[in-house]
Amino acid sequence: MNLLRDLPDARAGEIVERLAVIGATRIERIVSHGQASPAGFWYDQAEAEFVAVLAGAARLEFADGEIVGLKPGDWLVIAPHRRHRVAWTDPAAPTIWLALFMGASA
Amino acid sequence: MNLLRDLPDARAGEIVERLAVIGATRIERIVSHGQASPAGFWYDQAEAEFVAVLAGAARLEFADGEIVGLKPGDWLVIAPHRRHRVAWTDPAAPTIWLALFMGASA
Repeated sequence: MNLLRDLPDARAGEIVERLAVIGATRIERIVSHGQASPAGFWYDQAEAEFVAVLAGAARLEFADGEIVGLKPGDWLVIAPHRRHRVAWTDPAAPTIWLALFMGASA
Repeated sequence: MNLLRDLPDARAGEIVERLAVIGATRIERIVSHGQASPAGFWYDQAEAEFVAVLAGAARLEFADGEIVGLKPGDWLVIAPHRRHRVAWTDPAAPTIWLALFMGASA
């Protein structure tokens, strides 16, 4: 299984694939292709998230004002309930995210 | 922070960097440069491991006989106590691993 190949076509909408669930940790590949969160929408997750961009480019916006540009290899940890949205993903090519969600009990 | 840049020089020995610990999940970047596990050595881990190769090339060997070649993007889950060793990593360039270890309580 390969994170960078056999990409689903995400031009019509972001595609989330669950790769593994181990204990309270969920591992997903997310493919975006120009999508962004709706204006005014914020993710507000109970889980901690580790997210890396493996290909493409994206920009995350946090409700506290921080804006983080992401290119291949860039990663960050998003604390539980730190509100954020996807402000932008590259419309010209797929953006591949590797995301880990670690549940409250993890 | 970037998984693919600012690589430590691993020619003298594999280098493990702990990126984050969230609950019972530990996230590491490992850089190899030609190293392999000693002959006859087996990792026997209590934790489940999700591991992906992000750059370079490697080969894992399992005590049950399976051999898995890994190139960029390839990933697998190694069950707890499934004995394995690194049979080979590319001696010509760094191999970058992203490894997640999920503890027994996760």
